[in-house]
Amino acid sequence: MDSGTAYGRPQGSYRKELTEVGAGTPMGELLRRYWHPVGLTGDACAVPRQVKILGENLILFRDGSGRPGLVHPRCAHRGSTLYYGKVEERGIRCCYHGWLWDVQGHCLEQPCEEGGGKNRERVRQPWFPVEERYGLVFAYLGPPAKKPLLPRYDCLEELAPGEFIEADDSSIGGGGPALIPCNWLQHWENVVDPFHVPVLHGSFSGAQFVAQMGATPRVRFEVTPRGVKVESLRPADGGKVHRRVTEVVMPTLRVVPNPRVAKYGKVESIGWVLPIDDSNFRIYVAGRVTAKGELGRFRSRMAGKAWSALSEEEHREYPGDFEAQTGQGPITLHSEEHLAPSDGGVVRLRRFLESQLQAIAEGRDPACVAFNGQDALIRLDAGQALIDAAQAA
Amino acid sequence: MDSGTAYGRPQGSYRKELTEVGAGTPMGELLRRYWHPVGLTGDACAVPRQVKILGENLILFRDGSGRPGLVHPRCAHRGSTLYYGKVEERGIRCCYHGWLWDVQGHCLEQPCEEGGGKNRERVRQPWFPVEERYGLVFAYLGPPAKKPLLPRYDCLEELAPGEFIEADDSSIGGGGPALIPCNWLQHWENVVDPFHVPVLHGSFSGAQFVAQMGATPRVRFEVTPRGVKVESLRPADGGKVHRRVTEVVMPTLRVVPNPRVAKYGKVESIGWVLPIDDSNFRIYVAGRVTAKGELGRFRSRMAGKAWSALSEEEHREYPGDFEAQTGQGPITLHSEEHLAPSDGGVVRLRRFLESQLQAIAEGRDPACVAFNGQDALIRLDAGQALIDAAQAA
Amino acid sequence: MDSGTAYGRPQGSYRKELTEVGAGTPMGELLRRYWHPVGLTGDACAVPRQVKILGENLILFRDGSGRPGLVHPRCAHRGSTLYYGKVEERGIRCCYHGWLWDVQGHCLEQPCEEGGGKNRERVRQPWFPVEERYGLVFAYLGPPAKKPLLPRYDCLEELAPGEFIEADDSSIGGGGPALIPCNWLQHWENVVDPFHVPVLHGSFSGAQFVAQMGATPRVRFEVTPRGVKVESLRPADGGKVHRRVTEVVMPTLRVVPNPRVAKYGKVESIGWVLPIDDSNFRIYVAGRVTAKGELGRFRSRMAGKAWSALSEEEHREYPGDFEAQTGQGPITLHSEEHLAPSDGGVVRLRRFLESQLQAIAEGRDPACVAFNGQDALIRLDAGQALIDAAQAA
Repeated sequence: MDSGTAYGRPQGSYRKELTEVGAGTPMGELLRRYWHPVGLTGDACAVPRQVKILGENLILFRDGSGRPGLVHPRCAHRGSTLYYGKVEERGIRCCYHGWLWDVQGHCLEQPCEEGGGKNRERVRQPWFPVEERYGLVFAYLGPPAKKPLLPRYDCLEELAPGEFIEADDSSIGGGGPALIPCNWLQHWENVVDPFHVPVLHGSFSGAQFVAQMGATPRVRFEVTPRGVKVESLRPADGGKVHRRVTEVVMPTLRVVPNPRVAKYGKVESIGWVLPIDDSNFRIYVAGRVTAKGELGRFRSRMAGKAWSALSEEEHREYPGDFEAQTGQGPITLHSEEHLAPSDGGVVRLRRFLESQLQAIAEGRDPACVAFNGQDALIRLDAGQALIDAAQAA
Repeated sequence: MDSGTAYGRPQGSYRKELTEVGAGTPMGELLRRYWHPVGLTGDACAVPRQVKILGENLILFRDGSGRPGLVHPRCAHRGSTLYYGKVEERGIRCCYHGWLWDVQGHCLEQPCEEGGGKNRERVRQPWFPVEERYGLVFAYLGPPAKKPLLPRYDCLEELAPGEFIEADDSSIGGGGPALIPCNWLQHWENVVDPFHVPVLHGSFSGAQFVAQMGATPRVRFEVTPRGVKVESLRPADGGKVHRRVTEVVMPTLRVVPNPRVAKYGKVESIGWVLPIDDSNFRIYVAGRVTAKGELGRFRSRMAGKAWSALSEEEHREYPGDFEAQTGQGPITLHSEEHLAPSDGGVVRLRRFLESQLQAIAEGRDPACVAFNGQDALIRLDAGQALIDAAQAA
Repeated sequence: MDSGTAYGRPQGSYRKELTEVGAGTPMGELLRRYWHPVGLTGDACAVPRQVKILGENLILFRDGSGRPGLVHPRCAHRGSTLYYGKVEERGIRCCYHGWLWDVQGHCLEQPCEEGGGKNRERVRQPWFPVEERYGLVFAYLGPPAKKPLLPRYDCLEELAPGEFIEADDSSIGGGGPALIPCNWLQHWENVVDPFHVPVLHGSFSGAQFVAQMGATPRVRFEVTPRGVKVESLRPADGGKVHRRVTEVVMPTLRVVPNPRVAKYGKVESIGWVLPIDDSNFRIYVAGRVTAKGELGRFRSRMAGKAWSALSEEEHREYPGDFEAQTGQGPITLHSEEHLAPSDGGVVRLRRFLESQLQAIAEGRDPACVAFNGQDALIRLDAGQALIDAAQAA
């Protein structure tokens, strides 16, 4: 009699507490304790822009005095969308009855009301605080009493001569288009999974990165105060060892040295995995460069082509991160998994997230949250180095 | 600490009893006490036509003897759609087994049964009564015992020499395409909201109507036996006052003098806001004209262009009724509104609808329902006039 | 007062136990006691192919040694789809971490694990058994203990000189495209409904088959040990009678003599109505032919055109099986039906299916299930003959 067939297998399920990001969900509330990128600096402008983050539809704009604003899309008066609003010197004005809102949701004018609205201070357009750094607009969608400082990162603060910070919104590192239709955690887990590199990016598709990355690494996983760190050791020329350190850092940072250029030293860039909703994400990146457009050259190419230029047949011939991760479905089914020792990074990351959920459930602050300037500079270990074999032992 | 942010705001909700139109819902049953247009006279013809009204999919046709019919789309025999039926002299015949139905759902033939179906009088195709007037086909979807007379309206009955009635199905007054993807009440409320005119159709998009309409009016709202009436007073040349009266009349009539031509006198046309389902509507119009196609010239133009010719950028530059109303979402969220004194028409209309729901709940007839010929002529106040300042005070 | 109107009619419903095919549903479990076609022999190849059957998404492939395999699409390791897998000599390898699965779901390699995975025998990729016959790949999705032999059919086993078996996946007999968006039972019932032929395929659309088929037949319905049989008698030349026998046979077989060629003798082909899910099906056919492509010539043509070449207007002018059956909706509403004596085949088929549901509920085997070779040859009555009038009486 046949054994192990698919008949009668239970319905698969996923861990909601780790994946779902809506307001009021455990992970949604954890992520709401942090600042997240919502656009490039230039995205906040005089043309209202629809953005979606953590399952919330919002309107991003910049008033005439240069202040970026992020507001609930439905005008608090009668609900018409501010997407059709007009941005003015002092704020954004609804097209329907002309109520004018500033970037903090104060009602400045109600032109159809007597005297411009004597009670206009009683109404507030729901808004979120935003700040700009590294060429990105960051927003805080959490409880006001818990709003941390917008953090700084050493790798983006300490610039060599000729270096400057460039920002990118095309989901570099995602291996596909800018908007990626699966759960954010599938991507984040991928960052602490060094073993897929020699398979997916090596024997399967031909070396997508440099040849040296094709070797199966010796790996050490480590939980840090910030998240999870992966050290991968690979043999290099001259009896040396190539040590590569990759990190995931709260809330959604992917800190990955460029796998193609393989420059030694501190990691060049940070990627923020932005959950758009439960089954879509995108990646914003900021990095040190010496020439405009340098970040874009980090992108994988298969058979010499950009992802968007591949046919369906070529996507199957050269699958990459996009195919592997979206291939897990909109939200992967954890109940069907069979984790192995090589999944040690994934296991540690999930446990780390559980500890963070536990922290806020108990009223403590989660990792990487700072309320004073000194603590708001985060130092990272990620980077690449050539070390002696003895050191690597 | 930030105040008024969007964090923790409750899930929005809408008033189901005012908006939803399906059979068995409060508003659905109220609307089912009235005749509604389902097509132009020419839409009922030898080619079966799929129509949707109050959430019900139906087939409109006209048999060979000229009688319009409106039937349930699924053949009462085995459920195949009468969309593929053939219209004959005496009715419509299902393509599958040839059962022939007349406009009142009687089964005239069952060709595969012995003797053409000896028991065919036992089965009935579900149907609705229809009548034609003003170039439109009207249907009654309510309880047979409550079927009122199909009403007449003075403004469409009393014609000047050279005038005739023209009908239109392109949602004139909707400011966009013929099918409008939001709840019907959003549009109907717009009719009793004169204050959006100087903003949405004035300062925002440039004067979409005549310049005179750009002034913020002095407004008086009034509940009538038929619905709600809005009187707007604006200064006119020679010290005169432009008085404009707009009405909404049960069940869904928009009675709006042409805002572009600004001809003085009795209102020229009536629009029926037809709820297709909970989140789609269209508008049928019938009006007095002196030339074919005159109704179409009532349509708004932005920057000299028809709505369908505008780019997305131009829709944002020149938003109109379509953008403002669909911008409130499929069904606006009443829980998030902040109504102001200028919303007096909206408030009165909702209260009026509540009173009508109350009426049928108590077994009384709702407004504008007549069962004898004299009462079935409805006189309207809507129109425009130039009056003396003294009169307007 | 109007009678029989559509007002107040109850919400329609369908018989879930007869129509729904998912795992765990009554009909889903009944159908899972049988082999079903999942593709042409050539569909199982070195390129993984997504197939859907009885509501289950699966991957079909053929390993390098020629064995066809049908597996759950999500790799049992971390859930990435095997659609992006690579087919090798011994099985299919996941693109993400390279786990290699054979056609029975055994894990042969875990390249990222120490020693290639010492515990790899503890994990199994969910799979289903497949067998090939008549140019088709058949799968068994049911309980292993109940797996019957893959049956043989006399009409496909007993070949005349020059005849061979051809297979087709284009839903011959469906009257439309290869994928048909309605419940499978709507099609299956159509097979035992001879009375629609002279209407739908005759007076409605012009004779779609041979002229002789346009006559309304004299019909005898009969329940067989295999399903339901329909004998249709029509007058033929020379005072003879054309006897046509059509059958439906468990689990989903349509055994229909070619209605166009009207060759006399045993039925030429068998069609398997494959439920893709509750509201989509397709038909695989295998038949005796003397020339390649002969099966395709069984397809109906309307006005000399293939279905795909017809305009919407022509679909209405010449409706066929596709229009009539999809016109019943995704799943027809049995509560709204009014069956008549001419629906005798439909009534018998439903009762027969009820008896089969009853059988498995009581622990008995359903019809046409065989566990030894002799019983696995199924003899069919379907075919066409010219008989004497006396015989037909």
